[in-house]
Amino acid sequence: MPAYPGFAFDILHRDPASRARIGRLTTPHGTIETPNFIFCGTKATVKGVTPDQLRAERTDIILSNTYHLMIQPGAETVAAMGGLHKFMGWDGPMLTDSGGFQIFAMGHGSVADEIKGRRSQTREKTLLKITEEGAEFRSYMGGEKLFLTPERSIDIQRKLGADLIVQLDECTPFHVDRDYTAKSMRMSHRWGDRSLAEFERGGGLSANGLPQALYGIIQGGVYPDLRKESAEYTRDRPFFGTAVGGSLGSHKDQMVEVVGMCMPHIHPDRPVHLLGIGGIVDIFAGVEQGIDTFDCVSPTRIARHGWALMPGAKGERLNMRNAAHKQDPQPIDPTCDCHVCRTYSRAYLHHLFKAEELLGPQLLSIHNIATMNRLMRDVREGIRTGTLETVRKRWVCQG
Amino acid sequence: MPAYPGFAFDILHRDPASRARIGRLTTPHGTIETPNFIFCGTKATVKGVTPDQLRAERTDIILSNTYHLMIQPGAETVAAMGGLHKFMGWDGPMLTDSGGFQIFAMGHGSVADEIKGRRSQTREKTLLKITEEGAEFRSYMGGEKLFLTPERSIDIQRKLGADLIVQLDECTPFHVDRDYTAKSMRMSHRWGDRSLAEFERGGGLSANGLPQALYGIIQGGVYPDLRKESAEYTRDRPFFGTAVGGSLGSHKDQMVEVVGMCMPHIHPDRPVHLLGIGGIVDIFAGVEQGIDTFDCVSPTRIARHGWALMPGAKGERLNMRNAAHKQDPQPIDPTCDCHVCRTYSRAYLHHLFKAEELLGPQLLSIHNIATMNRLMRDVREGIRTGTLETVRKRWVCQG
Repeated sequence: MPAYPGFAFDILHRDPASRARIGRLTTPHGTIETPNFIFCGTKATVKGVTPDQLRAERTDIILSNTYHLMIQPGAETVAAMGGLHKFMGWDGPMLTDSGGFQIFAMGHGSVADEIKGRRSQTREKTLLKITEEGAEFRSYMGGEKLFLTPERSIDIQRKLGADLIVQLDECTPFHVDRDYTAKSMRMSHRWGDRSLAEFERGGGLSANGLPQALYGIIQGGVYPDLRKESAEYTRDRPFFGTAVGGSLGSHKDQMVEVVGMCMPHIHPDRPVHLLGIGGIVDIFAGVEQGIDTFDCVSPTRIARHGWALMPGAKGERLNMRNAAHKQDPQPIDPTCDCHVCRTYSRAYLHHLFKAEELLGPQLLSIHNIATMNRLMRDVREGIRTGTLETVRKRWVCQG
Repeated sequence: MPAYPGFAFDILHRDPASRARIGRLTTPHGTIETPNFIFCGTKATVKGVTPDQLRAERTDIILSNTYHLMIQPGAETVAAMGGLHKFMGWDGPMLTDSGGFQIFAMGHGSVADEIKGRRSQTREKTLLKITEEGAEFRSYMGGEKLFLTPERSIDIQRKLGADLIVQLDECTPFHVDRDYTAKSMRMSHRWGDRSLAEFERGGGLSANGLPQALYGIIQGGVYPDLRKESAEYTRDRPFFGTAVGGSLGSHKDQMVEVVGMCMPHIHPDRPVHLLGIGGIVDIFAGVEQGIDTFDCVSPTRIARHGWALMPGAKGERLNMRNAAHKQDPQPIDPTCDCHVCRTYSRAYLHHLFKAEELLGPQLLSIHNIATMNRLMRDVREGIRTGTLETVRKRWVCQG
């Protein structure tokens, strides 16, 4: 079993009223408190935001996507440039995913929508073939065939050099049946074993010689017995952390149910990451079930479309394109101390979006990042002081 | 004659070898040294760059465009939000233009290209009518008819509240004949008198009650006698500063000639602004003729297309999309101390542009702004120490 030198996960406090907990996650690039939110720096950049701005808004940890980086600029280029931290100018903790989610999400053309509970859309399918060996798919850039195996994913993630890395899995869509889900899950478990073996062969070190830590993934769709089996699989293997992945059901209540199917059976002392979830109400639900970290593109994606996160607002956000803001001298959120709320009015943000100025998405991304970081600080304070329910009522619209 | 309280222009040093000079331009929002470069914050934002980032790269002064702001968000909205400085978060010196250039550039469909020496393109014409009273044009947003007069331009610029404001002029295209150019120029002179009268009626104060300073504009096309007449017009009126506008000819050598037609006849003690010029080689040519300030969209516009300004490079710039940069660990410019060159490799910039990431244009804009500011510091140092020609050789490609 790998020792995961340079890494630790210490549970500092447990909420007596729920499974919520305060943790301290130590990596070679710094220590963060959990629960925490991991911002998506998909293609080696959090869209529209510099690392300096991330730090100014008290961001602790970001992630980047193996799938996108293996296509552009390629793992070899990132390694030649000294690894992802140096390449993109982020010196804090970082996670990379395995590439699985995007292969299957973009491949099936709809799984991402299903996982997020959105209506299915037609997209170009790029997934060519899934076999025991791995997944063949087409590059969305050049169109050439690419092949990703558990071993190749670990190799790429060694070259990228993030602190936390993730095993390859097949991310099954919601519409497949129980039989397919079960078979796919067991193949993902075999891929997990192959990932562990490859990780050990590499000495648990990145191409830069720094230690990395590997997460296993729980699959099993919406089936309680499969989720239990998968949670136990990850528990019984020497992973550093546990990720809850795959289809989390067709609506938000089912997400809570699916997470609930996993949590009693996971390794209790390891950090638990819930993949792709970032709504404020969902974060409270996840935290109360014992989730330690979350990630989602939504804070920066909705920012690019003019939405500002807002504690207590209906739908958790305000639309800055709304004409009501045209001459509103208030900051987006008078209770927010981010650069944007200290400097600009709603009227200015409204103007930037009406004028289709680049600065609009940039400033709203900064505000939404600051708001997620503030949310997670408030959540931790709520756990620490036994006031999580009070914190939830402040953040989640009670209407 | 207005006293222009709160404003001053002091000439501190003159280059014995040319008309170049070091000046100190004082405004209610700060004092800057000249020669200097005024960055275009067209729609109340320098595209993709925050005021904090502008300041970090030692930016002294920016401008914003009356034409764009009267359409969106409207001068009344900016005034209601406390004026342009507060609205956009820039507390340094600022200029607004009169709206004339864009009305006529977008109206004739080609004058901007002609003034910049680019090949004429077909654009939608929005100019409806020019009369002695003013110019009627269509909004590019809602399509409604708008009417701009010299008085209305001053009124809008009072509401915007920039420090330096400019009289309305008709910006004649290159293709019109001498007769049209002469008649138009004389109408612009009458518009200048109306602008001065309106300025005095407002007490020379912005809607915020801060003093403003008015520039007159020299027109006259490529005709030496007309340029002389127009320069003398501005000289003999109580403008604070002099702007050289209109068609500067069909190619770069003619720009130098046209500026040369004006400079012997201008008021010698007032700051001189050359409208819309920002190429490095052109800035040296302008400085040597006595120009104090320049503006151009090019530093940030070329950044958005992947071009990095580079001292001494062919064409004054490098294309970061070029495959040669794919694995280049160097900063864009090893002699540059901007945030981007201190933090990122050419390989990273190349990747951001290949991946079409928002951060690419943002970072290159920061680098190009820093480079223009460094150019202007070097130019001032060259004048101060009698080494302007040495500075020019370092900045302008000698190939």
